[in-house]
Amino acid sequence: MLVRAFIPAHITAFFVPAFHDDPLKAGSLGAGINLSKGTNVFASIETGTLERHIHVAFNGESVKRENAAITYSVADELVPGDFIGEVEIWQYFDFPNGYGFGNSAGGALGTALSLSYAFGGTWLRAAQTAHKHEVINRGGLGDVIAQLAGGIEVRVKAGGPGYGVVDNLFFEDYKVLVVPLGRLSTKEVLDGDVIKSIEIEGRKALENLLKEPRPERMMALARGFAEKTGLLSGELLELARELDRVLSNPPSMIMLGRGLFALVRDKELENAKNLLADLNLPYDVAEIYAERPKVGRWVG
Amino acid sequence: MLVRAFIPAHITAFFVPAFHDDPLKAGSLGAGINLSKGTNVFASIETGTLERHIHVAFNGESVKRENAAITYSVADELVPGDFIGEVEIWQYFDFPNGYGFGNSAGGALGTALSLSYAFGGTWLRAAQTAHKHEVINRGGLGDVIAQLAGGIEVRVKAGGPGYGVVDNLFFEDYKVLVVPLGRLSTKEVLDGDVIKSIEIEGRKALENLLKEPRPERMMALARGFAEKTGLLSGELLELARELDRVLSNPPSMIMLGRGLFALVRDKELENAKNLLADLNLPYDVAEIYAERPKVGRWVG
Repeated sequence: MLVRAFIPAHITAFFVPAFHDDPLKAGSLGAGINLSKGTNVFASIETGTLERHIHVAFNGESVKRENAAITYSVADELVPGDFIGEVEIWQYFDFPNGYGFGNSAGGALGTALSLSYAFGGTWLRAAQTAHKHEVINRGGLGDVIAQLAGGIEVRVKAGGPGYGVVDNLFFEDYKVLVVPLGRLSTKEVLDGDVIKSIEIEGRKALENLLKEPRPERMMALARGFAEKTGLLSGELLELARELDRVLSNPPSMIMLGRGLFALVRDKELENAKNLLADLNLPYDVAEIYAERPKVGRWVG
Repeated sequence: MLVRAFIPAHITAFFVPAFHDDPLKAGSLGAGINLSKGTNVFASIETGTLERHIHVAFNGESVKRENAAITYSVADELVPGDFIGEVEIWQYFDFPNGYGFGNSAGGALGTALSLSYAFGGTWLRAAQTAHKHEVINRGGLGDVIAQLAGGIEVRVKAGGPGYGVVDNLFFEDYKVLVVPLGRLSTKEVLDGDVIKSIEIEGRKALENLLKEPRPERMMALARGFAEKTGLLSGELLELARELDRVLSNPPSMIMLGRGLFALVRDKELENAKNLLADLNLPYDVAEIYAERPKVGRWVG
């Protein structure tokens, strides 16, 4: 049996981490955008072998347990204890790992949904399993619940699926321009001194967004958050200012990756692309993904 | 400006009402199915008149305030107090009103989403407004949150949007056959003696479904619930037994309407249709709607 799941990439615009001893109550407040590109997971389940094997591959390359701890933990929990056979989990990412696109949560949620679809379970339990192992392994706090919500999401009550509450903004005719330049370790940022100002600025941004809940406002607040926390600085800030000149809504920093994202109208796209091409920088364009993650039997 | 929303019809399979003084905490436990047919709402907003007018029409016919109390209440709340102009809310229903397809919630939610889209707001606030007026006017307790969840849904914690928790079952290749035969007053059933056995049997059905969360199990539990509460009896029960002979999963009663619904495989559909045609009974077939409700600017 072959099952396929698609989970949108998720970019966080601003956030407030909410730590909790119970992983299902840990999460984050904040806002972000789900993209039409993201993570595809193919789970192949075959019986007929003499032992139980679980294999994980990222972009076609086999990965060891220690480099895919979250996915292996999800699989260990959702493949029934008495299952004898071969489980292969193939994850394909449209964006690079560690760049702030929620790949880790995408892989975890896609794996959880695929295995639950194959072996039995529900959406909520699958999502909770993915969230739990994300939190325990510090992959992220809010990506899973944000990906379940889709669209432009606002996490108004922190927590995992079934505990947190996610709202959605209405939007029209925007594309998402992303400029992915490198990695940033979520762990290091969350362990550093910047966490205090993230908490203060994140809360302010959320309060202000809820007073005027529009995508344009979200981008302005995201940019303020990125600059005031000092996370957006140096060359990346200079690049944001270059892009300001050709875009009507401010681009902001991908939380957390070394990169930028922007909500762009069709007519603005060409100028932004030209600017980035002139600077010899990588970029990508995606739609906002307003649907739910997909999972189903793969016949193709 | 013209805005269109689509809200799926929602059929409740079994339920436990959860009353609460705070309408956002009132709701229901239970399970049900969202359909690819349902309620289309078109909201037309025009300025340029000298007064504020709100009009509501069902299937093209203007309706008075007292016959569309829920929709008018939603509109009164979501059209800004200082708005001067014409708001027309056109609701079109694929199934008859009062037959248990969640039309009232569909109209309320579609109106709330359309007006929030036009005047500003968020998905969650729109949904809470719809739920609140559904509960206050006793239109229903669980339809709004179920329609937001889509697919085959299981309400595992009662409450309105942001309070209740809804899970989803995985499913494959089913169509939904419905036999809509007449109205049943939700108010009368909830006020009657049957409420005690609804609570007992509904809770049992939910517990059992969560132990084995599959659509086939849901239908068997729904049928048990319908028969044990005595809601399904007489001619309708006889018809269910007729259909049992041609379907692999038991049909059950639409909660609350005088009608039946069934999960049907393609290859079973022809026999079921023939049976109903022989009996000269109306029926309809829909897909399971696994997406979110839709709202957006209408151009065309």
